[in-house]
Amino acid sequence: MSCSKVGKTRLFTPVWESSRHPPGMHMNVLIVLAHPEPKSFNAAMAAAARATFAARGHVVSMFDLYALDFDPRSTRANFTSVKDPDYFNPQIEETHATEVDGFSPALEVQMRKLEACDLMIWQFPLWWFGLPGILKGWVDRVFAMGRFYGGSRKYKTGLKHGKRALLSLTTGGPQAAYEKDGFNGDIDAILRPIQRGMLEFVGFDVLRSNIVFGPARLSAEERAAALAAWRDRLAAVESEAPVDVGRY
Amino acid sequence: MSCSKVGKTRLFTPVWESSRHPPGMHMNVLIVLAHPEPKSFNAAMAAAARATFAARGHVVSMFDLYALDFDPRSTRANFTSVKDPDYFNPQIEETHATEVDGFSPALEVQMRKLEACDLMIWQFPLWWFGLPGILKGWVDRVFAMGRFYGGSRKYKTGLKHGKRALLSLTTGGPQAAYEKDGFNGDIDAILRPIQRGMLEFVGFDVLRSNIVFGPARLSAEERAAALAAWRDRLAAVESEAPVDVGRY
Repeated sequence: MSCSKVGKTRLFTPVWESSRHPPGMHMNVLIVLAHPEPKSFNAAMAAAARATFAARGHVVSMFDLYALDFDPRSTRANFTSVKDPDYFNPQIEETHATEVDGFSPALEVQMRKLEACDLMIWQFPLWWFGLPGILKGWVDRVFAMGRFYGGSRKYKTGLKHGKRALLSLTTGGPQAAYEKDGFNGDIDAILRPIQRGMLEFVGFDVLRSNIVFGPARLSAEERAAALAAWRDRLAAVESEAPVDVGRY
Repeated sequence: MSCSKVGKTRLFTPVWESSRHPPGMHMNVLIVLAHPEPKSFNAAMAAAARATFAARGHVVSMFDLYALDFDPRSTRANFTSVKDPDYFNPQIEETHATEVDGFSPALEVQMRKLEACDLMIWQFPLWWFGLPGILKGWVDRVFAMGRFYGGSRKYKTGLKHGKRALLSLTTGGPQAAYEKDGFNGDIDAILRPIQRGMLEFVGFDVLRSNIVFGPARLSAEERAAALAAWRDRLAAVESEAPVDVGRY
């Protein structure tokens, strides 16, 4: 069971599905990495995740967005189909492309991986309280209306219902800066538009974020310890329950 | 007074500066537009703003990011200088480029406009509870460490202290979806990472967001009314006081 389809035709929902992956079963894992430096700590975290899952027999795919030279601009290049040649409305074109199989081949590959995954991990540096532009643009282009949401399919009825997602990020500042009333403020609230507005919106259950604060200020030993803790966590991630990311 | 420099050497802060532009004085206005369709309602809102300010004698610059084919990916193309050829850390390269005048010519143009502006307006559709990738990437690249923030320069001591910024956006959903406990939730909280984490972080005072909910569902008359209300508001924007965008 690596890519069971969650759709309208499903007749039952196994008890485990809303919170945990069935123990002992292989997962289909998608890792999306967004850092411009191949030797970065973020790249090391993504590589550690990939290796940990592969060693345990899971099916792992990774999109290294910078290595792929992924274009974060949503344009008509998203599509081979055209609904309205005179006015480009991304959502209308997405809905049409869903009906006529009209997504660009490169985007189609990414969408299939997103459809197939049981667990998705985004590995990125927090830039300006948000995703790097290249990753935000990945969401803009890949999370297409019609295909991943729309009509009654959203939040708990989203396409990815029963599947899990996890943010793994680094910050520039220290942990104290990201506590409530800290210098920048509560990291959970800062991440809420991502966890609630992107991941939960398309149905994912969200696992606790994995945050390494200020890796540039850590010693080599401390970074190695953070990598080891990440590997240990992922080795048992099937049994984790989702967290409450809060609402607005 | 269209582009007075706010810096360490400033000896006094006029009373008006923290809240209002001096009445009767011309402003230097920067409009940043992020929508892929030139005939979009967002483009019309940006054009209305530009025309309103120009008619009143203000100096207006506009970056239409899609028309400029702006690349939202932060890479070494940001720079003509190189601090560390073996490891690309954007913040370290930004700090170095600030010292040696090493930003790419295209980025340098945008940074100078940002430095000069008394009022900045971002016109964009809200995509996935956030900025479109092309605009998020603009922030990633243009708001450079060393030049716009760093050390003690942040929030109230940021470079743009005493200047104002305003988000002008459209949504897909109706207003009821963006109220507290509504379908998506409180729009102020959704916008907080942008208003607090980007605009206030570099010192801007934030004016009330101008939000047109679901323009695609409005009649031509309703869209015209929204444009007229926007023009009327901007004609007197000098006298507006900033809002409290909230903290975390």
